[in-house]
Amino acid sequence: MNNKPSSLGSQSDTSANLTESQLVDLCHRTLHYHGFSDDQMAALTETLVAAEMDGCRSHGIYRLLVIIDTLRKGCVKPDAVPVVEDIAPGVVKVDAQGGLSPLAFNKGIELLQEKASHSGIAVLALNHCVHVTALWVEVEKLAQRGLVAIACNPTHSYVAPHGGTTPLLGTNPIAFGWPRQSAPPFVFDFATSMIARGDIELYRRDNKPIPEGWGLDREGNRCQDAAEVLDHGAMLPFGAHKGSALSIMIELLAGPLISDMTSLESTEYDEGKGGIPYHGEIIIAVDPARTMGEKRADQTDSAERLFNMIVEQGARLPSQRRFAEREKSAREGVEIDRKLLTDIEALVPKATG
Amino acid sequence: MNNKPSSLGSQSDTSANLTESQLVDLCHRTLHYHGFSDDQMAALTETLVAAEMDGCRSHGIYRLLVIIDTLRKGCVKPDAVPVVEDIAPGVVKVDAQGGLSPLAFNKGIELLQEKASHSGIAVLALNHCVHVTALWVEVEKLAQRGLVAIACNPTHSYVAPHGGTTPLLGTNPIAFGWPRQSAPPFVFDFATSMIARGDIELYRRDNKPIPEGWGLDREGNRCQDAAEVLDHGAMLPFGAHKGSALSIMIELLAGPLISDMTSLESTEYDEGKGGIPYHGEIIIAVDPARTMGEKRADQTDSAERLFNMIVEQGARLPSQRRFAEREKSAREGVEIDRKLLTDIEALVPKATG
Repeated sequence: MNNKPSSLGSQSDTSANLTESQLVDLCHRTLHYHGFSDDQMAALTETLVAAEMDGCRSHGIYRLLVIIDTLRKGCVKPDAVPVVEDIAPGVVKVDAQGGLSPLAFNKGIELLQEKASHSGIAVLALNHCVHVTALWVEVEKLAQRGLVAIACNPTHSYVAPHGGTTPLLGTNPIAFGWPRQSAPPFVFDFATSMIARGDIELYRRDNKPIPEGWGLDREGNRCQDAAEVLDHGAMLPFGAHKGSALSIMIELLAGPLISDMTSLESTEYDEGKGGIPYHGEIIIAVDPARTMGEKRADQTDSAERLFNMIVEQGARLPSQRRFAEREKSAREGVEIDRKLLTDIEALVPKATG
Repeated sequence: MNNKPSSLGSQSDTSANLTESQLVDLCHRTLHYHGFSDDQMAALTETLVAAEMDGCRSHGIYRLLVIIDTLRKGCVKPDAVPVVEDIAPGVVKVDAQGGLSPLAFNKGIELLQEKASHSGIAVLALNHCVHVTALWVEVEKLAQRGLVAIACNPTHSYVAPHGGTTPLLGTNPIAFGWPRQSAPPFVFDFATSMIARGDIELYRRDNKPIPEGWGLDREGNRCQDAAEVLDHGAMLPFGAHKGSALSIMIELLAGPLISDMTSLESTEYDEGKGGIPYHGEIIIAVDPARTMGEKRADQTDSAERLFNMIVEQGARLPSQRRFAEREKSAREGVEIDRKLLTDIEALVPKATG
């Protein structure tokens, strides 16, 4: 983090301040140079910039490094054209064809909404994605279209089930969005692991012990050594047996139920190459216009009353911090670590950039 | 718990051993005497006996006391006839008409399955129920019909949101069921509160401090006094902000989304009478035949492999203990506390029983 006062477009030794359009340019330049199609480039840029503006660095432009690395390993198709399939009155599938997940999602939205509006509830299954989605970006987009949405996906097998000893489950995020009329949607998005993998990485870099309860060593014992947990042991689910059960549910819903891989299968498929997880994602959308019935205004008020009473007693809505960060980013730009920016810029040779 | 050796149908000073059919008789006798219709009686008995056989005392025949108490307060219609409404291609609603939830659920199953098989996914919304359902019994029933199912409901406002100070959310259970061919279904069912309300009651009875993290006092401070937490303070959600977010999601899905009450509204509706919570429930069912596609056998194998790898590393499947208890109950009968049995039998005068 940079503590110096900054202004829009400013520069310092440790960081650079970028505007939203500068972030977009950086993504476009990098992805275009590496052969991503315009469609793939646009959808991915939207996701990366949204995450960066929302203050989520781990899902932001940092991912350009990981994506180009995955491309160089031959593990992503930069010009994949997703194929939309109308499976059933309540099911649409989009086969990402080995491309990135954001474009596959975008291609499925229209039909998902049509089906949800017709049937009341519908599923969007994304298959065969190199998965770089920030789930909250998706459920927020659906909420802005008036839909209530749940999304989840497996990752790689990093997490031991509660009571177990070895990695089997993914960090399996789940996100939820609820439309609001005079406020940004109610949105949450969290990993079902105790903590994100990236956070444990930070402890390793700082050579500090991780808190008790985050991980196991190679023998399956509780362990506070970040490197041991990441390289030989296992992460732990949040909320003991309850978080573990949810994580298994996510494996099933976003894996076998939609004919795609579990986290374990995604890890096996990677064959130790260290690419971005390759798997599916499930999104369930409900159209409240079909379920709330005649008293829709009363129902909306009832939800608003709940939100207000959460805030009034001093608790935060899950999305509150993210929306505040977004406003700040729009106003003041985003501070990007100088080293990260140099690394990203190095992906495109100067002469051709 | 009775530690004496027991045999089927045996009696002791502290407990009686009842077979499944004796449990059914006891429920029928009690409910019939109090004017429950045959349909209401049959559906409720099925739920109570299933819970008792599965070793879940809090959802078992103990509830007869609470249900008759609720009846005497005028808070449940013993002869309500649920009304099934076909709302949309993916939505069926059952209005319980102020009756108990199990019959409403049973009345909706057929149409739910028909819709899920046609559309791939469907919602069953139960409205205006006096809610005495054990959710796992329902998702298990749907799994036995080949459906993947999620069910959840609000309760009364007992739980403070994470970071808050006063009761607002319910203990909001969520359950999930996944069909298996050569084993009982994969099923979980847990409250999103740190612990069930009944467990805190046991600490009060024993005059013991509850563990840290279960509740707050009337000022919103962490508190280990069971009575203070139950009567003046608030319970806490499991898994900090993550469990809290899930609990809010359940309020929204099983409340406003289906035009029914939040936990807070259910508490307000009760007006301090202390009746069983009166609210809705949402069940989402997916037909894997519509989402798994051609490679269904592979997908089923993939899920089985996941279950096996959980068990092989020494972890338990969420439902394992329950199924073991069920087998034991079928073999050896169920030990019922003598005082509980006396209290239940007292609900029906001897002469008319």
